[in-house]
Amino acid sequence: MKLIDFGVREDEKKYIQEWSRDNNIEVKIVSDLLTPETVKLAQGYDGIVAYQQLPYDEKIFDVMNEYGIHVISLRNVGVDNVPLAALKRNNIRLTNVPSYSPEAIAEYSVAGLMALLRNFKHMFRKVDNHDFRWAPDIGRELNELTVGVAGTGRIGRAAIKIYQGFGAKVIAFNKFHNPDIEKQDLYVDSLDTLLKNSDVVTLHIPSLGKGHTVINRDSISEMKDNAIIVNSARGDLINTKDLYEAVANGKLYGAVMDVYENEVGIFNTDLSDQEFKDDLLKKVIQSPRFILTPHIAFYTTKAVKNMATISLDSMVSELQTGTSENEINLDK
Amino acid sequence: MKLIDFGVREDEKKYIQEWSRDNNIEVKIVSDLLTPETVKLAQGYDGIVAYQQLPYDEKIFDVMNEYGIHVISLRNVGVDNVPLAALKRNNIRLTNVPSYSPEAIAEYSVAGLMALLRNFKHMFRKVDNHDFRWAPDIGRELNELTVGVAGTGRIGRAAIKIYQGFGAKVIAFNKFHNPDIEKQDLYVDSLDTLLKNSDVVTLHIPSLGKGHTVINRDSISEMKDNAIIVNSARGDLINTKDLYEAVANGKLYGAVMDVYENEVGIFNTDLSDQEFKDDLLKKVIQSPRFILTPHIAFYTTKAVKNMATISLDSMVSELQTGTSENEINLDK
Repeated sequence: MKLIDFGVREDEKKYIQEWSRDNNIEVKIVSDLLTPETVKLAQGYDGIVAYQQLPYDEKIFDVMNEYGIHVISLRNVGVDNVPLAALKRNNIRLTNVPSYSPEAIAEYSVAGLMALLRNFKHMFRKVDNHDFRWAPDIGRELNELTVGVAGTGRIGRAAIKIYQGFGAKVIAFNKFHNPDIEKQDLYVDSLDTLLKNSDVVTLHIPSLGKGHTVINRDSISEMKDNAIIVNSARGDLINTKDLYEAVANGKLYGAVMDVYENEVGIFNTDLSDQEFKDDLLKKVIQSPRFILTPHIAFYTTKAVKNMATISLDSMVSELQTGTSENEINLDK
Repeated sequence: MKLIDFGVREDEKKYIQEWSRDNNIEVKIVSDLLTPETVKLAQGYDGIVAYQQLPYDEKIFDVMNEYGIHVISLRNVGVDNVPLAALKRNNIRLTNVPSYSPEAIAEYSVAGLMALLRNFKHMFRKVDNHDFRWAPDIGRELNELTVGVAGTGRIGRAAIKIYQGFGAKVIAFNKFHNPDIEKQDLYVDSLDTLLKNSDVVTLHIPSLGKGHTVINRDSISEMKDNAIIVNSARGDLINTKDLYEAVANGKLYGAVMDVYENEVGIFNTDLSDQEFKDDLLKKVIQSPRFILTPHIAFYTTKAVKNMATISLDSMVSELQTGTSENEINLDK
């Protein structure tokens, strides 16, 4: 069995190499993305592994068929950028990695919140400048706060365990109730009730679709004074302009943003040598009351290792048994 | 009853004023420290509350006696800077605040650790510069790590609960065993065993005395590769030069330092407008692998409120009943 892995970043290489050695299976590592051109490198291989945010071109799959390659395993969860009809036409099976580390996202949310509660952004800037004064950066303790967890999927539930370890009061909202969270009696009856009663609102829900935000001028006006928003889910859950104004005018204490509604073309890119055109994001970055990071919540050694190795395990299963637990049903 | 409170910082005022209103007791707030000069402001008052790091001059207590004031309540825990013989001679009773928030210190330790595991210091600097790239700042997850808690007093035990919420493996060392921690079977047999088996070593122990460090070249050589040190206890527990070198040469991953062996005269001071003479601390501040903060772990709204109000409560008890639960035994 010979496999080929496309779009591999530097930090992924060692996990693929370790897997290759441990499983005694050859894996060719390619840093280029998968295109109708680069797919030619796959001739003679049994399966293709890939990860990219750009769309996969239909022609890739015609070439795969020509080479007799009938499985593609993605290292990530989303398949929106894969033309599924082209896969079916060419008799190609698809796998993804549905869960690589819910704890990575949950832990990030808490890390960001703690950095905000202890004013680390301002404190680091002061210390860099050899200003070691405490004031005005007095901290707040998490054990005194009520944390509202919106969304009790795998990530929200991982976050709840951490917040309970801190001794925070946890309340939660989800349309469908998880039995464990139900048993602990953490659910409130609506997202509104959650927003009204939380000192910290942490979002672990999917997008609501274009134009529908959870955090905006109206919902903020219902929230507690000095409340905090934590978003490591989706940028379009928040009207960032409204959030910025609420922090600037003192209604809210601050926010943690690992995602941003206009992040495409900005995050995971170096824009340090050009004029920065997003004035709102510029103000967010300058404010000591916003912890702004470029969509790194998932980016841990454990998650990256799982993305690299689970995709390869699925491929082996597909090639040896004709299916795998992570195979996507193309007929749905 | 009329009380006077010395050495009050801006951030303490509102808690003292709230207490005064709630208890309907007059409290005069003085920002000056308590000296043989300023004590004259206390004439006509029934009790003196104070907090300062500078020594209290013996003459203060002679004047107190002359004014008929026989109680002094400190807003902090330490009484090393109080000349106890002068108190006894003048028939003055002393109270302190033995515990204002162990959670403040425990939560800070975790906040600092999470900031290090997610490379926030470097990430914030990059984002400030509009460089939004992920690499090389891949994060590490706490749930995968073994945390060694040195010292299982109130602070260490509060930290253990938090680390367990994260799903980290916790081991602990303390000369005297706490029954709860014993029951959970977390104790290892020596500090050496703790150091050898931990990915994170977090210090919650008192000073060992001049020249005796826990973290130094010898002990570091016994530690796991890529281990992390967290110190929010006492600066002199660490040989900072050895620690810096171990991080710089890649043996250790990094460290969180809220205390520093030479912090006196630097921390809670603005040195931004002068030449900075501590080259070692300068290197620590520059390194992305050190989270360095100026002894702020205790500095939370909850802790500051407790320091302000518990000292006043003790004073009231002393004046009304002749004693209080926080009275220091001057005969020991």
